[in-house]
Amino acid sequence: MDNVRVVSYGIGVIGQRLANHILSKKGIKIVGAIDIDKKKVRKDLGEILGREKLGVVISEDVEEVLTSTKPEIVLHTTSSYLKDTYEQFVRILENGVDCISTCEELSYPYDTDAGKAYASKLDELAKKRSATLLGTGINPGFLMDTLPITLTGVCTKVESIYVTRQMNAATRRIPFQQKIGAGLTVNEFKEMIKNHKITGHVGLEQSIKMIADALGWDLERIKVDPPEPVTLDRDVSSEAIKVPKGYNAGTKQKAYGIKNSKALITLDFRAYIGADEEFDSVVIEGEPKINQKISPCVHGDYGTIAMTANMIPHVINSEPGFKTMKDLPIPHATPEHMRKYIK
Amino acid sequence: MDNVRVVSYGIGVIGQRLANHILSKKGIKIVGAIDIDKKKVRKDLGEILGREKLGVVISEDVEEVLTSTKPEIVLHTTSSYLKDTYEQFVRILENGVDCISTCEELSYPYDTDAGKAYASKLDELAKKRSATLLGTGINPGFLMDTLPITLTGVCTKVESIYVTRQMNAATRRIPFQQKIGAGLTVNEFKEMIKNHKITGHVGLEQSIKMIADALGWDLERIKVDPPEPVTLDRDVSSEAIKVPKGYNAGTKQKAYGIKNSKALITLDFRAYIGADEEFDSVVIEGEPKINQKISPCVHGDYGTIAMTANMIPHVINSEPGFKTMKDLPIPHATPEHMRKYIK
Repeated sequence: MDNVRVVSYGIGVIGQRLANHILSKKGIKIVGAIDIDKKKVRKDLGEILGREKLGVVISEDVEEVLTSTKPEIVLHTTSSYLKDTYEQFVRILENGVDCISTCEELSYPYDTDAGKAYASKLDELAKKRSATLLGTGINPGFLMDTLPITLTGVCTKVESIYVTRQMNAATRRIPFQQKIGAGLTVNEFKEMIKNHKITGHVGLEQSIKMIADALGWDLERIKVDPPEPVTLDRDVSSEAIKVPKGYNAGTKQKAYGIKNSKALITLDFRAYIGADEEFDSVVIEGEPKINQKISPCVHGDYGTIAMTANMIPHVINSEPGFKTMKDLPIPHATPEHMRKYIK
Repeated sequence: MDNVRVVSYGIGVIGQRLANHILSKKGIKIVGAIDIDKKKVRKDLGEILGREKLGVVISEDVEEVLTSTKPEIVLHTTSSYLKDTYEQFVRILENGVDCISTCEELSYPYDTDAGKAYASKLDELAKKRSATLLGTGINPGFLMDTLPITLTGVCTKVESIYVTRQMNAATRRIPFQQKIGAGLTVNEFKEMIKNHKITGHVGLEQSIKMIADALGWDLERIKVDPPEPVTLDRDVSSEAIKVPKGYNAGTKQKAYGIKNSKALITLDFRAYIGADEEFDSVVIEGEPKINQKISPCVHGDYGTIAMTANMIPHVINSEPGFKTMKDLPIPHATPEHMRKYIK
């Protein structure tokens, strides 16, 4: 069985971890690598990954990489925002190549402020060029959308859905801990929110829209609260950051899918140093009531890498078009030779 | 939007509960009903359901019902065994009608002793007649196959999967409590196992095969233990059955998917009066380890009814053929007009 040929587009933290994971798998081969970082361009991918040379030189010339390496699929990890990634997807699809992206806003762009201008254009282009495009990841992509949607399958009625993700930021990489303002004073945190230096979690609106569309709920509106500080009544710390009592330990943020002034969908995201329990939970009020919990919570980076790699066969097998997690068959791990899963 | 036209095939306990659920839903209409029970034939379906007449007369003439009522889909609930249901599916598919069945052995017949003679024949016939066939339910169909498969999606590696379903049989209908031998002496229970009067849970082999095929694992063999008695050190009882201390309170049964003499997949099914905790859990040993639990467990009958009804749009939208839960998009509730979910 021949290897699935992959181009890694984006060699940042997630791109590097994803590339390392792909290199550990059977039946799949990285044939090209794209990044614009001058410190990485013209270097061998293996060198950047801290392993032996792979004979894959990182390039910033997207067109050249795609036409010379002829990949079956691009794994794309450059940015959370469609305004930055849209033209990149156009280029990939124009070449008739399938693509899976961790771009949070791509996970469910339909009718969202950030995505509505792009969704149908990407679908049309993908169909025209016989390529498939998917946005996925752990969150958005699984924990706050695919999984709660799947769990409603056992319900004869659904009244509301409440999803919580609570993680101890101390278990995450340091840039993530900084991104959520851990160790700042509450005022510093609020200032950074005001100046958009802390943006909050990207994907809450997308997850709510995916759930609502799967269930056929016409929401009145989606409300995404700004991130709030989290203070604790004790000192806590990670390896890198000390958070004295009363200082900001991280962030909590809620978003709501609202109909008839009622929150039918609530997403409750909490990431802070010192969280005493890590879990992902889904509570569905309905018939029957469903009370589901994954503990500890699924690690964000590794979950994203798993979802991205594991969806490769479904995307290659799919009819052309822009797809979301609710359109494709149920996700699953791919422990064997990747070609085994491809029709 | 016009109603989805349904024929109810099988008006037993599950068929009746399913029909009542369908009658409570929007955008879907029962246009025909089939059963061979002489006490039901020629009666109005509504009468059998204990509600007002529906103008749908129960018939034993399958061909006549299908040709005269022209349904889009048949909901089939007659038997757990393919040897009993195969000819019924042939008749439905010959008429070019989609079908969802709760027949446990249909949930994943590939390479199983009970199903291998039928699976590819049903797929060929379905394709030839442009119809779609699906076997589903709560177990098999969701808790011990679809859900654990879905959860592996977040794993970069999977070493083994352990699924437990523990229910208090006192919460289930009396025929179920009798089926698991609650209230018998242990010797009476063992005698009934020996005489095949207690058969154990149907579906464990199918669920294991579905998980293994989704993950691409070539198992050496699937081992299904016979059901074992459960005795408690105290008296327990349901509304209908008293179980003195030391008597049989129900059943427990395990099944294993084995490779290299190791159980990669273990299904652990426990149903007895007096179970102090009801839950459905999935533990995945892998990277990351996943520890997931639904508590209380999902009620079997209502879960089966939900899954069957909720899969209607996916089956109608599907390309023709015999499908399993791992082939179709993620399940979800269908609270709105059924036509809304159909492409």
